[in-house]
Amino acid sequence: MQNNATRNNEETVMKQSVVIGELAAPEYARRIGDGWPVLIPLGALEQHGPHMSMNPDVLLPTAIGIAVARNIEALVAPAIAYGYKSQQKSGGGNHLCGTTSLDGHTLTSTIKDILKEFARHGARSICLINGHFENSMFAVEGIDLALRELKWEGTCDLQVVMLSYWDFVTETTIARIYPDGFPGWAVEHGGVLETSLMLHLHPHLVDMSQVPTHAAVTFPPYDVFPPIPEWTPASGCLSSAANASAEKGKLLFDVCVEGMSQALGEAWQARAKASRA
Amino acid sequence: MQNNATRNNEETVMKQSVVIGELAAPEYARRIGDGWPVLIPLGALEQHGPHMSMNPDVLLPTAIGIAVARNIEALVAPAIAYGYKSQQKSGGGNHLCGTTSLDGHTLTSTIKDILKEFARHGARSICLINGHFENSMFAVEGIDLALRELKWEGTCDLQVVMLSYWDFVTETTIARIYPDGFPGWAVEHGGVLETSLMLHLHPHLVDMSQVPTHAAVTFPPYDVFPPIPEWTPASGCLSSAANASAEKGKLLFDVCVEGMSQALGEAWQARAKASRA
Amino acid sequence: MQNNATRNNEETVMKQSVVIGELAAPEYARRIGDGWPVLIPLGALEQHGPHMSMNPDVLLPTAIGIAVARNIEALVAPAIAYGYKSQQKSGGGNHLCGTTSLDGHTLTSTIKDILKEFARHGARSICLINGHFENSMFAVEGIDLALRELKWEGTCDLQVVMLSYWDFVTETTIARIYPDGFPGWAVEHGGVLETSLMLHLHPHLVDMSQVPTHAAVTFPPYDVFPPIPEWTPASGCLSSAANASAEKGKLLFDVCVEGMSQALGEAWQARAKASRA
Amino acid sequence: MQNNATRNNEETVMKQSVVIGELAAPEYARRIGDGWPVLIPLGALEQHGPHMSMNPDVLLPTAIGIAVARNIEALVAPAIAYGYKSQQKSGGGNHLCGTTSLDGHTLTSTIKDILKEFARHGARSICLINGHFENSMFAVEGIDLALRELKWEGTCDLQVVMLSYWDFVTETTIARIYPDGFPGWAVEHGGVLETSLMLHLHPHLVDMSQVPTHAAVTFPPYDVFPPIPEWTPASGCLSSAANASAEKGKLLFDVCVEGMSQALGEAWQARAKASRA
Amino acid sequence: MQNNATRNNEETVMKQSVVIGELAAPEYARRIGDGWPVLIPLGALEQHGPHMSMNPDVLLPTAIGIAVARNIEALVAPAIAYGYKSQQKSGGGNHLCGTTSLDGHTLTSTIKDILKEFARHGARSICLINGHFENSMFAVEGIDLALRELKWEGTCDLQVVMLSYWDFVTETTIARIYPDGFPGWAVEHGGVLETSLMLHLHPHLVDMSQVPTHAAVTFPPYDVFPPIPEWTPASGCLSSAANASAEKGKLLFDVCVEGMSQALGEAWQARAKASRA
Amino acid sequence: MQNNATRNNEETVMKQSVVIGELAAPEYARRIGDGWPVLIPLGALEQHGPHMSMNPDVLLPTAIGIAVARNIEALVAPAIAYGYKSQQKSGGGNHLCGTTSLDGHTLTSTIKDILKEFARHGARSICLINGHFENSMFAVEGIDLALRELKWEGTCDLQVVMLSYWDFVTETTIARIYPDGFPGWAVEHGGVLETSLMLHLHPHLVDMSQVPTHAAVTFPPYDVFPPIPEWTPASGCLSSAANASAEKGKLLFDVCVEGMSQALGEAWQARAKASRA
Repeated sequence: MQNNATRNNEETVMKQSVVIGELAAPEYARRIGDGWPVLIPLGALEQHGPHMSMNPDVLLPTAIGIAVARNIEALVAPAIAYGYKSQQKSGGGNHLCGTTSLDGHTLTSTIKDILKEFARHGARSICLINGHFENSMFAVEGIDLALRELKWEGTCDLQVVMLSYWDFVTETTIARIYPDGFPGWAVEHGGVLETSLMLHLHPHLVDMSQVPTHAAVTFPPYDVFPPIPEWTPASGCLSSAANASAEKGKLLFDVCVEGMSQALGEAWQARAKASRA
Repeated sequence: MQNNATRNNEETVMKQSVVIGELAAPEYARRIGDGWPVLIPLGALEQHGPHMSMNPDVLLPTAIGIAVARNIEALVAPAIAYGYKSQQKSGGGNHLCGTTSLDGHTLTSTIKDILKEFARHGARSICLINGHFENSMFAVEGIDLALRELKWEGTCDLQVVMLSYWDFVTETTIARIYPDGFPGWAVEHGGVLETSLMLHLHPHLVDMSQVPTHAAVTFPPYDVFPPIPEWTPASGCLSSAANASAEKGKLLFDVCVEGMSQALGEAWQARAKASRA
Repeated sequence: MQNNATRNNEETVMKQSVVIGELAAPEYARRIGDGWPVLIPLGALEQHGPHMSMNPDVLLPTAIGIAVARNIEALVAPAIAYGYKSQQKSGGGNHLCGTTSLDGHTLTSTIKDILKEFARHGARSICLINGHFENSMFAVEGIDLALRELKWEGTCDLQVVMLSYWDFVTETTIARIYPDGFPGWAVEHGGVLETSLMLHLHPHLVDMSQVPTHAAVTFPPYDVFPPIPEWTPASGCLSSAANASAEKGKLLFDVCVEGMSQALGEAWQARAKASRA
Repeated sequence: MQNNATRNNEETVMKQSVVIGELAAPEYARRIGDGWPVLIPLGALEQHGPHMSMNPDVLLPTAIGIAVARNIEALVAPAIAYGYKSQQKSGGGNHLCGTTSLDGHTLTSTIKDILKEFARHGARSICLINGHFENSMFAVEGIDLALRELKWEGTCDLQVVMLSYWDFVTETTIARIYPDGFPGWAVEHGGVLETSLMLHLHPHLVDMSQVPTHAAVTFPPYDVFPPIPEWTPASGCLSSAANASAEKGKLLFDVCVEGMSQALGEAWQARAKASRA
Repeated sequence: MQNNATRNNEETVMKQSVVIGELAAPEYARRIGDGWPVLIPLGALEQHGPHMSMNPDVLLPTAIGIAVARNIEALVAPAIAYGYKSQQKSGGGNHLCGTTSLDGHTLTSTIKDILKEFARHGARSICLINGHFENSMFAVEGIDLALRELKWEGTCDLQVVMLSYWDFVTETTIARIYPDGFPGWAVEHGGVLETSLMLHLHPHLVDMSQVPTHAAVTFPPYDVFPPIPEWTPASGCLSSAANASAEKGKLLFDVCVEGMSQALGEAWQARAKASRA
Repeated sequence: MQNNATRNNEETVMKQSVVIGELAAPEYARRIGDGWPVLIPLGALEQHGPHMSMNPDVLLPTAIGIAVARNIEALVAPAIAYGYKSQQKSGGGNHLCGTTSLDGHTLTSTIKDILKEFARHGARSICLINGHFENSMFAVEGIDLALRELKWEGTCDLQVVMLSYWDFVTETTIARIYPDGFPGWAVEHGGVLETSLMLHLHPHLVDMSQVPTHAAVTFPPYDVFPPIPEWTPASGCLSSAANASAEKGKLLFDVCVEGMSQALGEAWQARAKASRA
């Protein structure tokens, strides 16, 4: 959650950080007044196998968000640290120990509330950077409810972009990361993608000696509730991260940061021009 | 949110950390199975004057929580990063730029949901460490609703302790911190207490050159809504932190950590014994 | 809840009462049209020890409200008769028999709904007079939500004052009421303050022969949920009301009524002038 | 809301009252322990024409409840003072000044919460005495939700009776009250029934010199929202109370009290026997 | 739910249908743009005795709605297929197998949401055609909440008519349907009215060989929760449909369609003129 | 929504139908008692281009559900006729005229409520057959909340299967339907799949003369709120259905019905055996 930049003195950090929590209010107000967008990482506290910490869904969109923010002059809000319930076919299931989730309505309300607050401050361009698959639709609903209430208040010009960072991994990159064929995003829980990114960004939170080596799981074309425990491997992972590496992590990180920076930069540059016209 | 301990290698961190997010699921499950309590910091994103970052309400209970957790063998959950609306007489008011708050019901639901999840994992002793005054009653309601629903599920032995770290500052310490007289907790927003703790723990997030020097505010014995902007000093602080220092911060930190460690240690030791009997 | 004034004939009562429920609609409409403020007592149904009825939290703010209303030309709405859950360190705890409480969200919604209704009638100055400590924050949230929705409707000039009557007890009065030292508001549940006020206003609802005589309770600096029954004295009181008297009750009543009348009178007189200007 | 019995001394009142708020907690607990049922009046704050106060929907079920309680050894809880929105064809409409109503969900939650609290105390027979037509279905939902949650807690033997007092007015009585023909309950808002009861019980809250004399309103067989203001007479009444009298009020009061006492007495006597068997 | 008109080719149906679901979006948009009202049937899935299917509360208001729509140039929306909980004295009770109901708040929210959507499309005249007694008040609340939120959006000219089809059965018709005397709407669950209408409209969903022949039930003037199973006949019907016939069904259908067509036609014709003026 | 089988007489229909609404309660109770599963179609009222009615998301899962139910002895409940808000990249967006959607929480509550009702009747195997992409996660939450509350009631053996019918279209079938390459499910709104199925099942609700012929849309890897109208083709379709045919529709229908029948049959047969053992 914190800026890893060199922290030689308070003045530098508090003037240069893109992390909202690290700014004093007047500096924050100044940047919002200048039209800086706000990026909000959406994460989760979720088991990610025996070889990885439980916070990648928070750490990865936060790190990506900070890098993007530096590229495009944006601010990064505190991450949503708890997400929607893990689904068996994308995260192993919410019956697993360690996974700590919110009801859908709680997540929706959280996102609605903070979007409205940033809009009250004056922000008009906000991006939710999702790091946990299951958050998506509840975040979408939070956005819709926030925009509705803002309209009631007379605020009609907030634009919210919703994305999941992995959607910026290009076909080319996938081919390089998975030379033996891509098993599909569906089973990428605690797999090569997340593990490589963590090895690149937070290596002390990965222990490759514990990586499970089982084959990728296949699921039937439906979901069952309550989950059938045997469907999820004992590791909690849906595929093996044995082929993960920090190099692949850097590749993934760079492609996501570059793609998002370009997409948001263009979108909001055009928008900024329009508003000036 | 992260453990500041030396991070020489992943094995050490992932075995030694008390921060839940930094543990792999099996290690977390082992400790919960051994009866380790869970500490949950409750914070806020709130303006704290021109001299300080906006995250002290998150950073302070997190740092205190980690220190307590090391003393008593407990775990620290991800902090609640957004809190209830700032009140004018305790935090300057929620009309101020930068302060980013949740509706009461959203905060209550968040706390209810995660308490139930930790209980599902097996935790039976949980402490909410509050760092933002206005959170208290909505957290209390979250606890009550969680215990009610857990009872419906047959879980009747969860005990939740709710505290605010400043309530562990002793009279003796207050006398040392405020040699010229204590202005009262009511106006300690962005004041000597919080600023000193930040100087001790996160000095790069304080810029003493910007400290406001106005007198402590006095308020009438009632609240007005919407807030009357003139009641809050332009600084956003309710008293001056000019007398803050890292030394005072260490003093405060130590007395809080010691008091909480002792209180929780005794409470839960007795409890552990009882459950073994 | 009823006007204790002499009731010689219907015309007098229905023209002279300040109690909204006792007015016919046209008379109410006329006064609201003339800018009369509305005072809403917030109470509770809560055990108050073996020597006192369970309705002081309703009766006291109602009686004070009526007296204030007569002083400043205001109206008194029906009291909120059920309040938020009693907390162990301020009211003995909500596990006790007789205490009958609402969930936080229910109380918040009730206050939101009726504030909006009085605003629809045309009221622009409303004061919540709280008589039950635990109500405060949920009432504050109700106010905030009402103001938000009213703003959506185009009503932006409602001002709501929130107060608890005991905050108008001056230091001087405390010194006279507690000649041997003030034990603190924290343990004033069923104690000298409330019992004296009841002896002054509703003596038939106090039976001094049943007053508990135990010492004031001391609590640790944290709360535990579920409450630990042994922490609360068997009496349900947190201190002894043995020194209560009707004389002290009159003193307290007068200082509260006077303080509130002055505060509200000034606040709203200024406001009324401003709106006329 | 208060016991109208002679109040010669505190001991008598606090021992003899059937009003819960007037009892000290131990006496209340004793009676609940003895199986006394709880009666809860459901009212409203609603305009009732130019000749009557706005509180009859609270005062009437409360007075009837107290009389029934004395007959059958039951307790009377504080009334619900604010009810569901007035409907045009039964109460003139919720657009009228003075009428002060709750959202349906707020009323439902209030009733759910307090039913659960009385059940926690040990009450197993509760009767809601409705005095405001529009409350019925939201009260029914509150009962259903309370019973559902109580079942989750293992409490399966609470029985709740729901009634509206006017349903106990017999055909014979109607014939005596309306010798020229009964216009139907539908237009009995601020009409002969309510006005007569108020003249009997609270004559100082009726001013017969202001009684409207227009004919009973007739409505089409559908409702329109928002209400069409012209459908409601300017008086706010749906029929004339010119023929109301205290004598008719006594007749109505007696038939309701007798009918309800008999119905509840038999129902719960049988029930009590069954539980003893 | 489907148009029973001859379906010779797609063009005819998709141009001529009054059923919204059967129209392509551009045709729907054109008609809404021309001011066509929208009729929404409110139904339920509820046991209706051994001789009848469980869907009459959906089928009857749908069929009536389609006939009315053809008369007055209106559109029929998909029916609400699940309604509020069956009450013992009007539908046998919600403890019965087959009856499948929603919580009150769910029904209210559903109606609120879809009213707002039709208003967004441009509809300004909407009629809810109720076919299930217990829906009424929760539908009323849904209307009220929708109008409130629409007002916040600046839409103030939506008019919603709420009706139950049986309220259009005239005294004359009742006399013809029940030559031996009308038992009252209260016990008309699975009785002559509904059964006759089904025999007229959907004869294959009635099996007269299974009609119960017991006498009409009488209930005391109060409700009991949970329901007392013995109060409801084993058939689930509250009176006998032995005298039902398709002829009576046609009579009922025609009087309802005619009455509603006339009422809505006049109401909205006037309205349309007013809006053009 | 209705059984299309020949309806020669009431006895046959009411005994042979698999449609719950068409059964009398005793027949329904008998089958539920025999362990018949319940299938619930989840649909939407949504624009589907100029060539198709707005109800395919209801009609298709209903028709498939009825066919599956006949294969495996199951029952089909009334469809959920209104779904979650259309998303721009999967349904054109919820700003379009005709699309009529629910808030997420409303949909979740609806599904929760009816699942609990079917479980109360005795159903232990329920399948939600989704026909509208955007419903999925809110349905999942409804299932989770229903299972949670059922557990509180002591019902722990309900199994809910959640599926979307298109997930049963095999690779082989896709190759036959799209000989020139599959554009992806993402843009299959009002496209070949849905249109072909409608041509097979409800040809009168398709008008191929109106089929749009534009190319399939491509979207950036993120969503924007409010939607950018220009992103959606004027037709409201995301790809062209020009290549749709009734033959393809039959192929799709058969593969879905067969796949689902086999999957559910096996799953629940095993389950039934297990419960008998």
